[in-house]
Amino acid sequence: MTQVAQLSSQEIAAAGKQVKESYDAFKAKGLKLNLTRGKPASAQLDLSAELLSLPGAADFTAEGATDTRNYGGLQGLAEARRLFATMLGAPAEQVVVANNSSLALMHDTVVYALLKGVVDGAAPWSKQGEIAFLCPVPGYDRHFTICQDYGIKMVQVPLKDDGPDMDVVEKLVANDASIKGIWCVPKYSNPTGSVYSDKVVERLAAMKTAAPDFRLYWDNAYGVHHLTDERVEIANILELCARHGHTNRPFVFSSTSKITLPGSGLAMFASSKDNVKWLLARLTPRTIGPDKVNQLRHVRFLKDEAGITKLMDRHKALIAPKFQKVLDVFAAKLAHVPNVSWTVPKGGYFISLDVPKGCAQRVVALAKEAGVELTPAGATHPYGKDPDDRTIRIAPTFPELAEVGPAAEGVALCVLLAVAEKAGA
Amino acid sequence: MTQVAQLSSQEIAAAGKQVKESYDAFKAKGLKLNLTRGKPASAQLDLSAELLSLPGAADFTAEGATDTRNYGGLQGLAEARRLFATMLGAPAEQVVVANNSSLALMHDTVVYALLKGVVDGAAPWSKQGEIAFLCPVPGYDRHFTICQDYGIKMVQVPLKDDGPDMDVVEKLVANDASIKGIWCVPKYSNPTGSVYSDKVVERLAAMKTAAPDFRLYWDNAYGVHHLTDERVEIANILELCARHGHTNRPFVFSSTSKITLPGSGLAMFASSKDNVKWLLARLTPRTIGPDKVNQLRHVRFLKDEAGITKLMDRHKALIAPKFQKVLDVFAAKLAHVPNVSWTVPKGGYFISLDVPKGCAQRVVALAKEAGVELTPAGATHPYGKDPDDRTIRIAPTFPELAEVGPAAEGVALCVLLAVAEKAGA
Repeated sequence: MTQVAQLSSQEIAAAGKQVKESYDAFKAKGLKLNLTRGKPASAQLDLSAELLSLPGAADFTAEGATDTRNYGGLQGLAEARRLFATMLGAPAEQVVVANNSSLALMHDTVVYALLKGVVDGAAPWSKQGEIAFLCPVPGYDRHFTICQDYGIKMVQVPLKDDGPDMDVVEKLVANDASIKGIWCVPKYSNPTGSVYSDKVVERLAAMKTAAPDFRLYWDNAYGVHHLTDERVEIANILELCARHGHTNRPFVFSSTSKITLPGSGLAMFASSKDNVKWLLARLTPRTIGPDKVNQLRHVRFLKDEAGITKLMDRHKALIAPKFQKVLDVFAAKLAHVPNVSWTVPKGGYFISLDVPKGCAQRVVALAKEAGVELTPAGATHPYGKDPDDRTIRIAPTFPELAEVGPAAEGVALCVLLAVAEKAGA
Repeated sequence: MTQVAQLSSQEIAAAGKQVKESYDAFKAKGLKLNLTRGKPASAQLDLSAELLSLPGAADFTAEGATDTRNYGGLQGLAEARRLFATMLGAPAEQVVVANNSSLALMHDTVVYALLKGVVDGAAPWSKQGEIAFLCPVPGYDRHFTICQDYGIKMVQVPLKDDGPDMDVVEKLVANDASIKGIWCVPKYSNPTGSVYSDKVVERLAAMKTAAPDFRLYWDNAYGVHHLTDERVEIANILELCARHGHTNRPFVFSSTSKITLPGSGLAMFASSKDNVKWLLARLTPRTIGPDKVNQLRHVRFLKDEAGITKLMDRHKALIAPKFQKVLDVFAAKLAHVPNVSWTVPKGGYFISLDVPKGCAQRVVALAKEAGVELTPAGATHPYGKDPDDRTIRIAPTFPELAEVGPAAEGVALCVLLAVAEKAGA
């Protein structure tokens, strides 16, 4: 494609007119497509259909003669903690298995830190004046919402292909004791698919922080969510932090939300012995225990690590073609548009599409008008404000494969139209 | 039984020796009995065995074509909210159905109030200096633990047969804006079985509070947990508060923990429209939604109000004889011991046993030594301290019926021995 900037105004007008016609034709189809949320498709949920009738009327006893139906068991079933230990990179004793939603665990640990403080902390975060979290961008809107909701200042740091810009991170945390945490999605990051390199993970573990109560919020949401045969692995943050004398620094989170059923999965927390003790002490006034029947259900269904791997392969078979479809359409329609680029993730749930500065909101609005729902532009940045108005998160998993092509075509048309509009077409 | 006080010292010694021999004989049996927690027995859990294979592989769609397996639905399934609406005394729109543990909902609403404040509040509770909750005693230890954990001062008020002593309550809340709440178990109270009279409920609804952000924590845990055919009903706190212009005062909590499965039940919140909006706004940063499959499972199993009633009748058939057994043993062994009395609950999970002042801890210690676990003396009071060391909570539901008699005999023996010891036998 000829670069728009090099065209004459007449040519621009003609190109713009053509794009507008294609857009109008697309819009006239009256499609209803949705690329907003990282939601598994119905066919993916069908892979876990067994869960809907497990564990069965006669099966409710877990290890240690635990009646899963009754009260108790704050840390979660031993067999559930063991099942996820490798995925979390922690011994089962240092794992807590909770109800659905790792977001809830992240939220609650922030709340506990605010009201009660963390291990190594001299005072609750809420008694230390203004505090801040580092937010690698683009990032996950729900992380940012927690900070915004509780008045935690967000300091943006650039997210690169191999993780946050560590020169920036190290400098900030070394000098500012009000910085209490950083949001990390270390593998197949939301939305860029970035994978933290071993070097970055080690620097996060080793770096000096002015705050003794600094915490890595290590949201390993996509630890086993591969899209290729490469099965990327990352360094073990718990081990590295311990090696560098910062044993209590990482809070590791994960869940089965995109392994089994998003609404009815299990969330997990893994950390140092002291941090686990801390979390259990915080959970004690809150609940007598998690839903252990659902934990048993998951243990019976997933069985072991091999069971998880097998299931994730089946997910991959369903969703990798959807990612490929989006990438193919973008390559065909957008490859030569200046300042348009996108990520090619090896796992996770998202493609991050960068459009020319100042165009993202317009693309999302045009798409909506044409029946393609996209995540609001800006959602990838703190306060919902992308200063460059450039990044759009594409979530191709939820629609049927047959719909992904048209949806991606629609998005590409909207990008072209927004670019044309900007060029004054 | 002759009153101990009227006996000669020789007679006291002889009686004490006899009691000690009986106690030793009991202890020698080496029984292991447990009357500590309000836990349903295994046979009660069997009543909900169907839940363990519901909803079934093909059934995951709720009203409005909701795929319960996937994300979303913060307020809970419409049919689940409707199912519990009557039990909660609120329209379904004003009900939130959450994951297991109403305790977690109570805890979280306290936390949200501390960090963010409530509707009608000028500031978060944590920004208002020292705050306090009224604690009717004897009461539920886990309520008190929440206050203690977050540094909320606890002000004891006497719990009478018809509810808290309202003369005391009204006076306190009218004059002290630091009093932000009161813990209420309005029906079949833990541990006394007290039922709040219509008059008390109305006074709680109507009373003037110095704090505009005062909240009734209305833990209606035993709303349908009858032990007799009387099926006691209480006044509707939501309606009464609205009538008296205090629409946002009550937070109503309940759960299916002692209806279906304690570990895997549903918790509910009901309140004013504004309070429900407030809670949903607070939940938004925390989670994308509750476990809707478990909600569907409960809807399929319980079906409707009649289904709940039928199930509760089956619970009653299993546990009412256990309560009767304890009452029979106490009547036979303790009826004439001065300053010993106990409650005869019409529902709920507990009998409250009052022993002579200064004897409760000793009774619990003696029981433990003899193989009968009791809830620690003092647990019924804030900070675990019963100033009179008098009240013991008896929970007869968990042991088999055949064990309840021996356990109650053991407790009675321990009471007699503690009394004899105190009399100097």
